[in-house]
Amino acid sequence: MRPQFADGATRIFGIVGDPIAQVKSPAVFNEKFRTLGKNAAMIPLHATPGSFDTSMRGLKSLANLDGILVTFPYKNSVIAHVDDLLPAGKRIGAVNALRREANGRWSGDMFDGQGFLGGIRANGLDPKGLAIMLIGAGGAGSAIADALAEAGAADLTIFDRREDKSRTLAIKVTQSHPDCRVRSGPATVACKHVLINATPTGMVAGDGLPADVGPLAPGLFVADIIPRPDITPLIAFARSCGCKTMGGQAMVAGQADAILQFFGLL
Amino acid sequence: MRPQFADGATRIFGIVGDPIAQVKSPAVFNEKFRTLGKNAAMIPLHATPGSFDTSMRGLKSLANLDGILVTFPYKNSVIAHVDDLLPAGKRIGAVNALRREANGRWSGDMFDGQGFLGGIRANGLDPKGLAIMLIGAGGAGSAIADALAEAGAADLTIFDRREDKSRTLAIKVTQSHPDCRVRSGPATVACKHVLINATPTGMVAGDGLPADVGPLAPGLFVADIIPRPDITPLIAFARSCGCKTMGGQAMVAGQADAILQFFGLL
Repeated sequence: MRPQFADGATRIFGIVGDPIAQVKSPAVFNEKFRTLGKNAAMIPLHATPGSFDTSMRGLKSLANLDGILVTFPYKNSVIAHVDDLLPAGKRIGAVNALRREANGRWSGDMFDGQGFLGGIRANGLDPKGLAIMLIGAGGAGSAIADALAEAGAADLTIFDRREDKSRTLAIKVTQSHPDCRVRSGPATVACKHVLINATPTGMVAGDGLPADVGPLAPGLFVADIIPRPDITPLIAFARSCGCKTMGGQAMVAGQADAILQFFGLL
Repeated sequence: MRPQFADGATRIFGIVGDPIAQVKSPAVFNEKFRTLGKNAAMIPLHATPGSFDTSMRGLKSLANLDGILVTFPYKNSVIAHVDDLLPAGKRIGAVNALRREANGRWSGDMFDGQGFLGGIRANGLDPKGLAIMLIGAGGAGSAIADALAEAGAADLTIFDRREDKSRTLAIKVTQSHPDCRVRSGPATVACKHVLINATPTGMVAGDGLPADVGPLAPGLFVADIIPRPDITPLIAFARSCGCKTMGGQAMVAGQADAILQFFGLL
């Protein structure tokens, strides 16, 4: 009988980020591997900014490591380590999954948008025709904006503390999806249907709201991409206002199957 | 409840080698971690010779990776990656376990000899006063020779296909243990009590015996350090001659607790 976890023949997958202890992917993927009967493991890999490139080179050099997930803050900078950038990754300019191809090259693609869509749909929400407030124009925010526009969102406002980032993203989404009304603007959510936090603010104890969102109407759907804590400051505030909420675990679950297919395990 | 294996907070340990699929340490250590209630994982890491240094640099740079086991063929060359070489490792010139110290430096030591001794003692054999034939003067062979002499073996013959290696090792052990009669010589085991294979020959299908050992008397104790297959060609031959045998798993088990202590987990 195969050992419960990891023998010499186990194929290794890792998730690279900083911080790392909060990530849900190891638990989610190891349970999937178990269910699928795969001798594979997903392990957390804490790469600090000063050694990220060294870590990535080392990980890619391991012959039994077949795939790497990438999370905050490396979804953009990891592109330097991707040999072949696949379409969604290229369009968004960010990557959250890399795999070794049969020829030894590493390809990378972005699954955050697909995962977020899977999460809100599993929560009964279809973004088609809706007005949406998105906080955060980084790697995850870019992927989510792209996926929402692709899914037919009518109106998308993007806020980032660095206004140049939100403006650049708004222009990019407008160009690829001219039917969606996209703008960079303040984070107040009056008249919006959906509010999304795609920043890391809320991950660390003592964090507040990711932006000044103003009062929240009870009909608003509020989503946070942070997988831990379950109840971020934004989710707590939204619940106190009577809003329906979704935590970051739903996004992880929403993209797990797509990534397993990308890894050739499904 | 803690997930069955690996969440974001799991501390990572790895075993580096080439090949890697046959190693027993992941199964042995993961079972130990489970029993001890430690949120830790031991994973196999396949580093090929051309990228070993890149792999080591990358692994050491990961902030949640606390220790590295090293197996064939890197027990000597890994010393270049050790900041502080501990006494047994320095004496033997080989290392099979590295740990990150509180100050961020990596120290390394050699536990193979201790593990082998633990294994034969668990099999009811005390090497004190015995005449021993050791095949293989690499990292593991050096550690085993040192430990056997330390434990009072009376007579030790070392064979290696590269005679310069067996001669060098014989001189080194003679210097550190003048009471043990040590020589480099052919692998025939007439009049010996114990025969040990400390080479990788027998690991790969199609391998034969590690050397021309001549006929084996039924009273001989025959040990192989290869953990998989369970029955190496040498073990099979020895059993057919009526000898008592010990496989490489006994050596892994024999050193697990010493390494867990080194890793600060016991």
